[in-house]
Amino acid sequence: MAIKEHISKRFDADLEEVRTRVLQMGGFVEEQIERAIDALIEGNETIIDQVIDNDHRVNAMEVSIDEICSQIIARRQPTASDLRMIMTVIKTITDLERIGDEAAKIARMARLIYTADRLHAPRFVEIKHVAQIASSMLHQALDAFARLDLNAAAHIVRQDELVDEEFRAILRQLITFMMEDPRKISISLEILFVAKAIERIGDHAKNMSEYVVYMVKGKDVRHVTVEEIEREVRG
Amino acid sequence: MAIKEHISKRFDADLEEVRTRVLQMGGFVEEQIERAIDALIEGNETIIDQVIDNDHRVNAMEVSIDEICSQIIARRQPTASDLRMIMTVIKTITDLERIGDEAAKIARMARLIYTADRLHAPRFVEIKHVAQIASSMLHQALDAFARLDLNAAAHIVRQDELVDEEFRAILRQLITFMMEDPRKISISLEILFVAKAIERIGDHAKNMSEYVVYMVKGKDVRHVTVEEIEREVRG
Repeated sequence: MAIKEHISKRFDADLEEVRTRVLQMGGFVEEQIERAIDALIEGNETIIDQVIDNDHRVNAMEVSIDEICSQIIARRQPTASDLRMIMTVIKTITDLERIGDEAAKIARMARLIYTADRLHAPRFVEIKHVAQIASSMLHQALDAFARLDLNAAAHIVRQDELVDEEFRAILRQLITFMMEDPRKISISLEILFVAKAIERIGDHAKNMSEYVVYMVKGKDVRHVTVEEIEREVRG
Repeated sequence: MAIKEHISKRFDADLEEVRTRVLQMGGFVEEQIERAIDALIEGNETIIDQVIDNDHRVNAMEVSIDEICSQIIARRQPTASDLRMIMTVIKTITDLERIGDEAAKIARMARLIYTADRLHAPRFVEIKHVAQIASSMLHQALDAFARLDLNAAAHIVRQDELVDEEFRAILRQLITFMMEDPRKISISLEILFVAKAIERIGDHAKNMSEYVVYMVKGKDVRHVTVEEIEREVRG
């Protein structure tokens, strides 16, 4: 009995550790996005380089959390909600790593934009706005994961539609900009790639919030409509 | 002893089933890419619609294979190479599902291109070429998974560099095209999104081939250089 309790406590500690690590990785990735966007707007090359350099830390976090998950499966043989938690972590860190990649891409685009010609760049008001929404979606997705909060998950899926709309608005604006002055085509495409990276961050945050629903309810809500997710969360 | 052997045989059958399902999903996704590219080149609206409609089948395959993996972990408590196989499957199907998304995106872009103005579209020779490389990378990645072939994996990672180069060449070509005639900007951007989708298919195939190295050697080679992968494969 004492041994069983001991094993169970160790198991709980393992799960707690993996949860903490996911939240640390998420927090770091969030910083990466914010710094990449700031560097883009301010043209700060030191921060640009830092964001690019830091990407290997995000990658290392993914590899190490994957390793911990494998060990937990092999040693603790989780079932039911514990297993769902581990499955959720395995999926979540893949999305976090790819958000990290997008942050590094934004930094690389920022470098191209400033190496080329800052004065020909359009204003970054819309980019900053949509980046704030995407970054807040990631923050909420991590909170939802930490607190097992289903309502937040449904809310995040809704916000992803907004990010997609904002992306299309930026695209239309950039097309006008390019048609007015074809010399601005190259720089506009770099800004388009930044907008695309932000749009993908929104997609990844949405994926993460769908895994939270799976973790809590045991129901796989990827690929269903937002209305179905809301029904599932209420039900 | 008889029971143990029976359990072991059931376990082998489970692993065999999951492997077969991954290959079926992969084959279907491969078809989706090829049909999307054919539809783009031929302007065949029936095929365009089919590719878009079929995407939910790819999604359903992902959900069902994930479910099988969870059941295997819970019931069979895999360790060592069996567990690595399951971890590889869980990661692989995420990439396959996203390749499916890219195929559906290509089909949606094809629809936009034909709804707009076919005659203003540049030739699709380069798009077809890079799509063939990406599609062949996926095929090789699935073969490498089926045959536990490490050499193929290293080869695929090399090809991804080629796809990235081809993408940059298409981008430069499209910029010239847009500068020559700003009325072609919208359609050029649609073609750019197609090229971007193909480039991402290459990335996903590369991810899949890296998981194969992990599955066979137990070494995580994501985020390392291609030279390190080659050393690992030889060693």
